Amino acid sequence: MTRSDGRSADQLRTIRLARGWLDHAEGSVLVEFGRTRVLCAASVTEGVPRWRKGSGLGWVTAEYAMLPRSTNTRSDRESVKGRIGGRTHEISRLIGRSLRGIIDTSALGENTLVVDCDVLQADGGTRTAAITGAYVALSDAIAWMRGQGMLASGEVLTDSVSAVSVGVVDGVALLDLCYEEDVRAETDMNVVMTGDGRFIEVQGTAEGAPFDRQELDSLLALAGDGCRELTEFQRAALASAR
Amino acid sequence: MTRSDGRSADQLRTIRLARGWLDHAEGSVLVEFGRTRVLCAASVTEGVPRWRKGSGLGWVTAEYAMLPRSTNTRSDRESVKGRIGGRTHEISRLIGRSLRGIIDTSALGENTLVVDCDVLQADGGTRTAAITGAYVALSDAIAWMRGQGMLASGEVLTDSVSAVSVGVVDGVALLDLCYEEDVRAETDMNVVMTGDGRFIEVQGTAEGAPFDRQELDSLLALAGDGCRELTEFQRAALASAR
Amino acid sequence: MTRSDGRSADQLRTIRLARGWLDHAEGSVLVEFGRTRVLCAASVTEGVPRWRKGSGLGWVTAEYAMLPRSTNTRSDRESVKGRIGGRTHEISRLIGRSLRGIIDTSALGENTLVVDCDVLQADGGTRTAAITGAYVALSDAIAWMRGQGMLASGEVLTDSVSAVSVGVVDGVALLDLCYEEDVRAETDMNVVMTGDGRFIEVQGTAEGAPFDRQELDSLLALAGDGCRELTEFQRAALASAR
Amino acid sequence: MTRSDGRSADQLRTIRLARGWLDHAEGSVLVEFGRTRVLCAASVTEGVPRWRKGSGLGWVTAEYAMLPRSTNTRSDRESVKGRIGGRTHEISRLIGRSLRGIIDTSALGENTLVVDCDVLQADGGTRTAAITGAYVALSDAIAWMRGQGMLASGEVLTDSVSAVSVGVVDGVALLDLCYEEDVRAETDMNVVMTGDGRFIEVQGTAEGAPFDRQELDSLLALAGDGCRELTEFQRAALASAR
Amino acid sequence: MTRSDGRSADQLRTIRLARGWLDHAEGSVLVEFGRTRVLCAASVTEGVPRWRKGSGLGWVTAEYAMLPRSTNTRSDRESVKGRIGGRTHEISRLIGRSLRGIIDTSALGENTLVVDCDVLQADGGTRTAAITGAYVALSDAIAWMRGQGMLASGEVLTDSVSAVSVGVVDGVALLDLCYEEDVRAETDMNVVMTGDGRFIEVQGTAEGAPFDRQELDSLLALAGDGCRELTEFQRAALASAR
Amino acid sequence: MTRSDGRSADQLRTIRLARGWLDHAEGSVLVEFGRTRVLCAASVTEGVPRWRKGSGLGWVTAEYAMLPRSTNTRSDRESVKGRIGGRTHEISRLIGRSLRGIIDTSALGENTLVVDCDVLQADGGTRTAAITGAYVALSDAIAWMRGQGMLASGEVLTDSVSAVSVGVVDGVALLDLCYEEDVRAETDMNVVMTGDGRFIEVQGTAEGAPFDRQELDSLLALAGDGCRELTEFQRAALASAR
Repeated sequence: MTRSDGRSADQLRTIRLARGWLDHAEGSVLVEFGRTRVLCAASVTEGVPRWRKGSGLGWVTAEYAMLPRSTNTRSDRESVKGRIGGRTHEISRLIGRSLRGIIDTSALGENTLVVDCDVLQADGGTRTAAITGAYVALSDAIAWMRGQGMLASGEVLTDSVSAVSVGVVDGVALLDLCYEEDVRAETDMNVVMTGDGRFIEVQGTAEGAPFDRQELDSLLALAGDGCRELTEFQRAALASAR
Repeated sequence: MTRSDGRSADQLRTIRLARGWLDHAEGSVLVEFGRTRVLCAASVTEGVPRWRKGSGLGWVTAEYAMLPRSTNTRSDRESVKGRIGGRTHEISRLIGRSLRGIIDTSALGENTLVVDCDVLQADGGTRTAAITGAYVALSDAIAWMRGQGMLASGEVLTDSVSAVSVGVVDGVALLDLCYEEDVRAETDMNVVMTGDGRFIEVQGTAEGAPFDRQELDSLLALAGDGCRELTEFQRAALASAR
Repeated sequence: MTRSDGRSADQLRTIRLARGWLDHAEGSVLVEFGRTRVLCAASVTEGVPRWRKGSGLGWVTAEYAMLPRSTNTRSDRESVKGRIGGRTHEISRLIGRSLRGIIDTSALGENTLVVDCDVLQADGGTRTAAITGAYVALSDAIAWMRGQGMLASGEVLTDSVSAVSVGVVDGVALLDLCYEEDVRAETDMNVVMTGDGRFIEVQGTAEGAPFDRQELDSLLALAGDGCRELTEFQRAALASAR
Repeated sequence: MTRSDGRSADQLRTIRLARGWLDHAEGSVLVEFGRTRVLCAASVTEGVPRWRKGSGLGWVTAEYAMLPRSTNTRSDRESVKGRIGGRTHEISRLIGRSLRGIIDTSALGENTLVVDCDVLQADGGTRTAAITGAYVALSDAIAWMRGQGMLASGEVLTDSVSAVSVGVVDGVALLDLCYEEDVRAETDMNVVMTGDGRFIEVQGTAEGAPFDRQELDSLLALAGDGCRELTEFQRAALASAR
Repeated sequence: MTRSDGRSADQLRTIRLARGWLDHAEGSVLVEFGRTRVLCAASVTEGVPRWRKGSGLGWVTAEYAMLPRSTNTRSDRESVKGRIGGRTHEISRLIGRSLRGIIDTSALGENTLVVDCDVLQADGGTRTAAITGAYVALSDAIAWMRGQGMLASGEVLTDSVSAVSVGVVDGVALLDLCYEEDVRAETDMNVVMTGDGRFIEVQGTAEGAPFDRQELDSLLALAGDGCRELTEFQRAALASAR
Repeated sequence: MTRSDGRSADQLRTIRLARGWLDHAEGSVLVEFGRTRVLCAASVTEGVPRWRKGSGLGWVTAEYAMLPRSTNTRSDRESVKGRIGGRTHEISRLIGRSLRGIIDTSALGENTLVVDCDVLQADGGTRTAAITGAYVALSDAIAWMRGQGMLASGEVLTDSVSAVSVGVVDGVALLDLCYEEDVRAETDMNVVMTGDGRFIEVQGTAEGAPFDRQELDSLLALAGDGCRELTEFQRAALASAR
C-alpha cells in the first residue's frame, strides 16, 4: 500500500516547531504535523485554583479548541452554540493529564500554567500535535518563570512528553495518520509517551471490527518509534536559539 | 497486599444483573459491581437522526449520568449547572462506541437505540459496570424489537461486550477497582472487550508515574480474565427467565 | 366505575418505603406508590447558604428530577438541554416548602439538608410519592445528625408530612391517581398534610371544566383520609429496624 | 387590626384596567392593583405549535416576567443570567392554565394567542393582577380576530376569569395582600375563579404553621367575594369604549 | 417629500418625559419620542464592582431591553432564549458609555448607578430615547443620593446628555426617524451629545450605498439641532416639580 | 510627541497580508497591523439562511473572536463561559456590515459567505485589521466561486473596503493606534471606507472628555489618508500571485 502523501508506513509527516510565535505568552509554539497546524500558548499565573490552595503544589491544565474553518467544511463555533462539545472536553482533559504526567507540581510551587492549544488547520492528529507542541511551550514558560525567580531550585519537568497517532488502515499499521487515513482506519490509537519511553496514556479504539492482541502490539511498537523521533524534534527545537 | 474488601488481586466484586428492572423501557437492567449500582435502560425509537436518514443503517447511542448523591459527598446536578461536564461527555461517548462495536447497524434497519446509564450509587468502576449492564439492556431491547417484527432476519448483535477496570496499586496489578483503590492507583486502565476476547477500547492512564510496557501487559492480561468472567455473568443473566 | 387496577375510589396503591437504600447518603429511601418509584436521598452539610449565614437557622431544600426513561416514552435529559423545565422547578420548590413546613430551623442550627428526589419510574403521583418518601429520608438524616452530635437538644421535626393526589375522573372523586387516571382527570389536586391533619399545601387545578365548591370539599376529604394512611406507613417504616 | 393602607380586611386595593395601552398588540391592558402595575399584551398568530397541528384546536399561552427595578431593590435580569427562575416559570404556567380554563380552543381554530404579562411595578399580587388583566387583553385580541374574520361563529370565551390573593396575617384573613402583608402572612393563597364563581385554580401554602380546614374555608370565602368584585371591574372595562 | 406623520425634515416627534413614574426606583422616567416609549429606572447601590474596589471611583452602567410585544410582531424573550442578542448588548453598552461621558466618577464615590431602559413600545429611535430619558432618571437618582447624604460636595454631573437619530431617506436628511423611515434609510446615524454641544458618540452606518463627507456633514448639523432641542426638554422636565 | 514605536502621527504600522494562509478555506489571509495578527478565513456555502430563501439574494456575514492568549494576560474562552460577550458581538456585526457595504448580493446569487476573523495576537486595532484582511479573503473566495462556475456574469464586489482606527492621545490626532495608545486615547474612532473614499461606518467615542467638531474633522481626515494607503496594500496583495 502506498500512502496518499507517499510516506512509508512508519514515517512521520514533516514536523515543525516554531518557538516564540507569540509575543505576549510566556511560552508559545506553532506546531505542524504536515498540514495540521496548532498554536500552543502557555500562560503563567501566580496562585492556584481554590481547591488546591495551601497545598504548596502548582497546577497545570490545558484547553483545546478548533477554529471554525480549520476543517474542510466550516464548523459552528462552540462559543456561538453556547456549549463545549464532548470531543473538545475530552481532548482538553487528555492534554492536561499528559502534561501533568511530566511535571513535579511541588517544584512548581503554587503557580498555575494554562496551555491553550488552538487548531488553526486540521488534517488529522490534532491532539497529538497539540501535546507535542504544548510540551515545548510549557518548557519555555517554565524557563521564563525560572528567569523571573518564581521557582525554587528543584526541576519542574521530570521528563519530556510527546504523542502520536497510529492506526490500522486496510490491514496495515500506519504511523501519524492524516485525516483521510484516520477516516478509513479500522483501529485508531493515540499514544502519549515520555522521553524515556514510558506510557502516560494509551487510547485505542476499534472503529470497525474489534482488534486483537497482535494488532495492539504492532501499533504500540510503531507509536514507540514515532514518539522517540518526536522527542528528538522537541530537543532540537528547545536547543536552538529562539 | 490485602484488598480492603478481602478480595484477591484478580477477583471481581460481587456482580448482579437484575433484568427487567423497569416496566416502561424496552430493555433494562440494574447492574451491580459490588456497591456500584447503575440503572441501564434501553429505549427503541423508529427512525434515525437526520444525518443518517436514507442510509438504511440504524443508530445506537448512550447517555451516562450520576445522581447527585450517588457519591460520597453530594455533587451539584448538571441540569442545574446548565452544562454537562467533560467526564460525563467522555463516558457517554465511550459507552456508545462500545455498544456500536458489536452492532450490525444494517441489520438494525433505520431504528435508534438509546441506552441511558444512570449511576444510582458509585463506588468505582461506574463506566465499566455501565457498559456491562448496557449490553444486557440492549439485548433485551433487540429481542423486544424482534418480537414486534421491527427487524429483518439478520443478527443485530455480532458479539457481546463487557468492560472492566484494572490498575496498579502499591505496585500490584488489581482487577475491578473500588473507589478507594481507584483513588490510590498509580495506573488506571479501562478495557472494553468482546465476548470472543478482542478489544473494542483500551484506555490506560498514568495517574502518577508513567508506566512501562511490562505493566501494560500484566494489566491487559488481568482485564482479559475479568471480561471473560463478566461475559459469563451476562450469558447467565440473559439465559434466565426475566 | 372500576379503576384500571381494580382499586376502590378511596384506596391507595401499594405503598413501599425501603429505608437505607443507599450507602453514602445520611438518609435515603426508595418509595413506591404502585409502579411509581422515587429514590429520595437526604444529604447533610455543615453551614448554610450565604444569605442565611449568622442567622442561627438551618436550611432545608429539595431537588426533583426524572430519569429520561422513567416515563413511557423517553424524554430528553435536562442536563443535555442545558436548562431545567418549569415543571421540574415547580415540583422541587413544592417539596422544599413541604419539608420546611415541619422543620424547626432554629433547632437544626446552621446546617443544610438537601433532599434529592429522583424518579426512577413514573406512573402518576411522582411529586406526592417524593414528599412522602423525602420525609422518611429527612428523618433518618436528622437521626444521623443527632448521632454525630451536630444537634442541640430541641426537636428538629415538629410533625411528619405526607402528600397525595386526588382528582375527579368521569365525575368520581378518586384517591392517588395513576398516570392513566391523571391524564383523564377533569380536576387534579395535590394535597400536602402534616401528621396531625393540617394543610401545608393545597394545589387544585381544573384541567377541563372549572370545579365548584362541593367538588373541592369532597376532594379535600378524600385527601385527608389518604394522608392519614400514608402517615401510618411512614411511622411503621421509621419504627422498623433499618 | 388596621391594614397599612387603611383598607378593611375584605377590601380590594384600587383596581384600574387601562385598555389599549399599546398600539401594536392585538389586545393590551395596563392593570393596577394598588401600586402593583402589570402590562398585559395579547399577541395573535396564525397557526399552532407543531405538536398541535392538524388538531383543529387553538392554543393559548402566557409569559410572565418582572422588570429588574419593579421591585424594591433591583433584581438581575433573567436574560442576563441566561436562565429563567423557578418562580417565573411557575407563574407563567399558572396564567396560561387560567386562561385556557375559559377558552374553547375548538372555536379558536388553529390560531395561537400569547399573553405577555410584564410587571412594571411590584407590590404583592403580581400574578393575580396579571391573570385579571390578561383576561381583558385576551378579550380584546379575540374581538380583533373576530373583526379580521379569523374566527368561525362559536364563542371562544366560555366565561371570564379573575384572580386574587388572600392570606392570614396575625390571625386575620385578609383580601388582596400588598407586599408588606404578603411577607408577614402565615398562610398565603391564590385563587383563580371564573365569572360564574367556580374554581380554575386554588393554591394555598402554609408559610409558617400549617393551616386547618376552618382557615381554608374562610380564605376561600374571602377570595370568592374578591373575584366577584374583580369580575365587575373587568365587565365595566370591556363595556367602555377603548 | 412629506414625512408619514406630517413632520418637517428637521422636526422632532412629540417628546414627553414623565418623571417619577415608578415608586421604588431612586430615579425614573417614562420617556416618549412619538410612539416610542421607554421606561428608564435608575438604581443606586453602595459599593462598586470588584475590579473597581478601592479606587475611590463610582460606576455607572445601563441595561437595555425590549418587551416582547413592544414591536409590531412579537419577538421571543431573551430570557427564554437563554442569551442576549448582539443588538441588545451593543445598545446597553452605548447607553452606559453615554452616561459615563457626563459623570465625574470621583465625585460619585464608591457607589454604583444602574439605569434600566426597558422599551415598552418601539417605533424607531429606542436607543436615543433611552439615552435621553436615562439622563433624567440618573439626575433624579443623584439628587436622591444628595438628599441621603451619600455624596461629598463636588458635582457628579459635569453636563447633560441627549441623543437623536438622523438619516438619509430618499436622498433627504431627516431628524428623529420613526421605524418606517428607519427601515427605508440609506444612511443611519445615532449621535450622542452633551448639553454644551460636544460629541460623546457618533455612529454612522451606510445601510445601502456608502455615504460621502457632505452627507455626513449635513447629518451632523441636523443632529446638533435635535440634541439642542432635547436638552431643553430635559431642562424643563427637571425644573418642574415631580 | 514621539510614538512608542517611533512612528509619525499619520503613519500606519507595518502592514502584511499573507494570502492563502489556510489550505481548506476558499479564501484566507493572515493580516498583520504591526503586532496585531488576525487570521481571516472566508467560507462559501450554497444556499442562504431560511429568512432569505427565494429572494435570489446572497448573504455575507462575519464572526470575530480572540484566542485566549492573544492578549497580554490570558482571557477566559467564550465557549467555556457559555456566552459571547457584548464586544465580540458588536465587532462581528461591524465586520459583517462593512463587507455587505461593498457586495452586490444579487450578483452573488443564493450563496452564503462567512468570514471568520480570529485574532491570534492583539495589539490594538484588531477590528480594523480584521475588516481590511476580511476583504482580501472575501475577494479570493469570490474568485474561487467564479472559477467553480457558481456566479453569473455581474460583478459581486462593487468596491473594496478597508478600516483604520484613529484617536486623540495627549491632544494629538494619531493614525492606527497600538494597544498602549488606545488605552490612553481621549477619543477613539474606527472608520470603515470604500476604495473610492466614501464611508461605510464611522464610530467615534469619547473615552474621556467629549470631543468637538474640529477634533472630529481632523480625525476623519487622518482616517481617510490611512484607508487610502490600506487600499493600496490590498490591491498589491491581490495583484500578486498567491
